Amino acid sequence: MTLDDFSHYARQRVDTYLTQNLNQYKPARHLQEAMAYSLFNGGKRIRPMLTYATASLFGDANSLTDASAAAIESIHAYSLIHDDLPAMDDDDLRRGKPTCHIQYDEATAILAGDALQTFAFELLSDSKHQNTKAQLALIQELVHASGRHGMVAGQMIDLANVGKEIDVQALEQMHQHKTGALIRASIRMGAISTCNKSGAKNEADFAALDVYAAAIGLAFQVQDDIIDITSDTTTLGKTQFSDEDANKPTYPKLLGLEGAQALAQTLHQQAITAISPFGEAAQPLVELANYIIGRNH
Amino acid sequence: MTLDDFSHYARQRVDTYLTQNLNQYKPARHLQEAMAYSLFNGGKRIRPMLTYATASLFGDANSLTDASAAAIESIHAYSLIHDDLPAMDDDDLRRGKPTCHIQYDEATAILAGDALQTFAFELLSDSKHQNTKAQLALIQELVHASGRHGMVAGQMIDLANVGKEIDVQALEQMHQHKTGALIRASIRMGAISTCNKSGAKNEADFAALDVYAAAIGLAFQVQDDIIDITSDTTTLGKTQFSDEDANKPTYPKLLGLEGAQALAQTLHQQAITAISPFGEAAQPLVELANYIIGRNH
Repeated sequence: MTLDDFSHYARQRVDTYLTQNLNQYKPARHLQEAMAYSLFNGGKRIRPMLTYATASLFGDANSLTDASAAAIESIHAYSLIHDDLPAMDDDDLRRGKPTCHIQYDEATAILAGDALQTFAFELLSDSKHQNTKAQLALIQELVHASGRHGMVAGQMIDLANVGKEIDVQALEQMHQHKTGALIRASIRMGAISTCNKSGAKNEADFAALDVYAAAIGLAFQVQDDIIDITSDTTTLGKTQFSDEDANKPTYPKLLGLEGAQALAQTLHQQAITAISPFGEAAQPLVELANYIIGRNH
Repeated sequence: MTLDDFSHYARQRVDTYLTQNLNQYKPARHLQEAMAYSLFNGGKRIRPMLTYATASLFGDANSLTDASAAAIESIHAYSLIHDDLPAMDDDDLRRGKPTCHIQYDEATAILAGDALQTFAFELLSDSKHQNTKAQLALIQELVHASGRHGMVAGQMIDLANVGKEIDVQALEQMHQHKTGALIRASIRMGAISTCNKSGAKNEADFAALDVYAAAIGLAFQVQDDIIDITSDTTTLGKTQFSDEDANKPTYPKLLGLEGAQALAQTLHQQAITAISPFGEAAQPLVELANYIIGRNH
């Protein structure tokens, strides 16, 4: 399967699952619309691709894999809605379209984000999965990655860093929380969905996946920073130099453009090496690592 | 035990549990502070009292009861933070103290609310409870009560109602979602924490508790509306006539003050009757119903 085929497969699968579940019971139609607007806004579905690719290492993707991919995407969508708010990054445009609070209003955007977070836990706790042990393990992973130990802490650190001089280590720590934790969860949850039926985890496998996750998670950010200064606004779907303007610390600022590009290559190599023990089965993960470094938007 | 004693017991228990768990690992201290500020702001802890009182019908309160009470209070706290934001109700004062976005800033308030929601699911999914079946049942209850099926939907309906002429039925539907659902969950989760070890639920018990919950949930709102026009700002800890000012529909507006007071009495009677089969064990729930109708702030 080529990366394009795999991307198509993952997108279709997670979007179908999201649509089916989102459409169940809606007391507030306006809220549901805003949730759907932000969930289906042309995102690249990289996290679901990671989830399905990792799941396939241990077995066939199942309803827990779908729920994991959909839950992670819901958390990702909620974080973007809240991140775009005037009080946060104040972005009017995302992927070339009005952000949620522009399309609707601020109150709706706050509530849609709140409801998308709950929706993630709704998908994972659904009694139809009938695998309470794995479901609870998945919820624990998502909690750890998305809340005060992970993503939200990273956003807080990010806001505190604006206008400050920080070193590469502090920048990495911020990214590990802000985006790295959820990427790591995308991978671990994929694995749990297919290998954890009995509650048993192969520690060595998870350790290898964690190395892969840490490397591509950081590479993703380094590449984002590089793209921000090398691509134009049309390609990006958001304002070019938005990070520069906001006076945010970035890898090119700290390491120079070439230094940042070299770091991305090093991280890419680390990622590929970490999953080499999985052999041919890890090909989708290899291609995802290639894509993350090669992309220009 | 008097209601004061019971209130003291419930508060001490849930606050200890919240503090112990909140203090574990904090990558972003500022975030943790804002979370604690809003969790420990002198709230009446009515929901935890309901949780402990219901749990006691079926057995001794245990760690799942504590986690339930703490999780519900975290959801309640997050909803107040987001509700107070300028884009929502724009309140500067809550219980006589600056609201979270006044004490800190808007971005911190948004993130503290987000993290408090995740924290609720952290508490319930914690592996230390070692009761995956009951934990998942509790998570399902909280999801249903707090997200797009419950509280957030209610907030959306509430915003849509501002300035509109609506009838008593529409007002009730809004309150059932906005506050009723979480009060119902406080009660149901208390019951699940002590009676659901084997996964079995006594349907008749839950049906009786649901009637009690619906009645006191609505009575709580009717009483809130009454208090808003009969108490002064000092007693309330928030601005008097704030609902009037916001042009929001209220029970006194629709039924007159006396009509609203009569409705509160009827709901109170319904609640007491529903739990009478539990006999003496339901005394704390009876006193809580009395308190909800009798309070003046």
